[in-house]
Amino acid sequence: MAAKPLGEFARIARFFAPLALPGGLKLRDDVALIAGRRGEQYVLKTDAIVEAIHFFADDPPADVARKLLRVNLSDLAAKGATPVGYLLTMALPKSRGDRWLAAFSRGLAADQRKYRIGLFGGDSDATRGPMVLSLATIGRVAHGRAILRSGARPGDVVYVSGTLGDAAFGLAAIKGQLPRIGVAARRYLIRRYRLPEPRRGLGRRGTASARAAADISDGLVADLGHVCKASGVGAIVETARLPLSPAARSVVARSPRMIRAALIHGDDYELVFTAPPNAAGRVAAAARVAGVRVTAVGRIVAGRGVRVLGAKGRPLHLSRTGYRHV
Amino acid sequence: MAAKPLGEFARIARFFAPLALPGGLKLRDDVALIAGRRGEQYVLKTDAIVEAIHFFADDPPADVARKLLRVNLSDLAAKGATPVGYLLTMALPKSRGDRWLAAFSRGLAADQRKYRIGLFGGDSDATRGPMVLSLATIGRVAHGRAILRSGARPGDVVYVSGTLGDAAFGLAAIKGQLPRIGVAARRYLIRRYRLPEPRRGLGRRGTASARAAADISDGLVADLGHVCKASGVGAIVETARLPLSPAARSVVARSPRMIRAALIHGDDYELVFTAPPNAAGRVAAAARVAGVRVTAVGRIVAGRGVRVLGAKGRPLHLSRTGYRHV
Repeated sequence: MAAKPLGEFARIARFFAPLALPGGLKLRDDVALIAGRRGEQYVLKTDAIVEAIHFFADDPPADVARKLLRVNLSDLAAKGATPVGYLLTMALPKSRGDRWLAAFSRGLAADQRKYRIGLFGGDSDATRGPMVLSLATIGRVAHGRAILRSGARPGDVVYVSGTLGDAAFGLAAIKGQLPRIGVAARRYLIRRYRLPEPRRGLGRRGTASARAAADISDGLVADLGHVCKASGVGAIVETARLPLSPAARSVVARSPRMIRAALIHGDDYELVFTAPPNAAGRVAAAARVAGVRVTAVGRIVAGRGVRVLGAKGRPLHLSRTGYRHV
Repeated sequence: MAAKPLGEFARIARFFAPLALPGGLKLRDDVALIAGRRGEQYVLKTDAIVEAIHFFADDPPADVARKLLRVNLSDLAAKGATPVGYLLTMALPKSRGDRWLAAFSRGLAADQRKYRIGLFGGDSDATRGPMVLSLATIGRVAHGRAILRSGARPGDVVYVSGTLGDAAFGLAAIKGQLPRIGVAARRYLIRRYRLPEPRRGLGRRGTASARAAADISDGLVADLGHVCKASGVGAIVETARLPLSPAARSVVARSPRMIRAALIHGDDYELVFTAPPNAAGRVAAAARVAGVRVTAVGRIVAGRGVRVLGAKGRPLHLSRTGYRHV
């Protein structure tokens, strides 16, 4: 009789956490830390994107490259780290020729300039299946100043950057599953899916006030849930306060249930972080300087797990809490 | 009119070398270097293995895990670096369940103990295609003491560790392409294909005398070729001096042309390194202490490229010079 398969996080806890070094933070964070140059630590992160799962075969290669870089830079931003460099591994089908690679490398070059990061090296292999692109990214941070998942305390305010749900709607648009909305709104949502914007300025300035942070790659409820678990606390999120773009609002106006995408879909790569209530002024100032919208969406409480309140303040039950790319 | 596609190394030079940081060594080496703790540098390496290319779907999962670790540890060994930790990314088909992962993680655990390395973290994603497993590995080395590809000088002796060709014959055996040999020899060769042995002791001790080093992952001629290119020199290799295991000898006895596998096949993950002639005693002593066979197979000369002399000292022309996993 086959046992019920473990979920992703149970697998990590069961099979991989016992293998972790101290710098691996018991695999409860999404980064690792090692000693760096004097007074600094290196922040290590790896994240892969898979064809037909995270991007599509006919996406512009430069966008694929930039998304790959950005989903990793997003984690560095969440931790308040400054990018240093990255290692690239590619499993490429033969059909990806020089032309594709030339455009891909131009995308990397553009974002390297933008985010001041460079290439350390890589590995390229053939595959008979979908493309798999993986980055190991290194940032640096003053010793002990990385904003980890484990620092949230009851009473903290829960903030998110930018707007949520856009990427989910962009993906739905690509798949032809979106209600009819305006052309510009549709384009905006697809762009948000293809090309997330790492919230770097916010992350670095956040070190002054944030107690815990993560980027939202599995969905707000799931990633805030990781923060809660690592911190030994619970959280309450109010759906009515979720920040939506005008384009996302036009989707939700036509299909109110789709608000759930803002709770359970991760491809926006916004940040979720917590800070004590008396830091509200500093958080607002950091957001202004970084030019990034920041919205309080809930609070940290004693206990465990993330409770979501619906539009009228009643508990919302989600059939799933984190987007699974399967 | 389509241009002739670039080879792997031309692609790296054209598309990726311009993106490299100084620590990326112009992507002419197989590792990168960054500042580490006081007096040290970190050596960074990434290497992936792909199902149906580097391993087979029904290979024992623990062996797959150990091969993944070892192909990376082999590079650290070549550079004389001590392993620190690694990041793991996995693109897994749904068919790989908890049982497979449990065995895979046991393989990692066994080799973590053996090679004193630990896990920093990772990322796991779904794929609809073959499994792709990628490692980013970090080692440490005294500042300026990493043995790079670029240090070879005319007059140096070219050494290789262990024996060559075993893994190629092991792969041929799995594919049913091997001449009939004894059962024990066949098993030995398959084992060599599945589970390479990083030459760590040799690498660390080698820092005393080696001028340039690389692990043989693309084949002796190709990897020595990389050393020559990075060093601005040429090399001569004598086929008659290539070290073969008894099992490999039994293959070559039946099919003499198969000696070429020892020149162009990389899956042995042995080391190739160069040292001045007056270091011969130190090289032999280091080999004895490490318990690893070391064989002089040629010499570094002025010029460029690798020339191979056949059994009777006449130039051997190879239709290809490096194993391509395609």
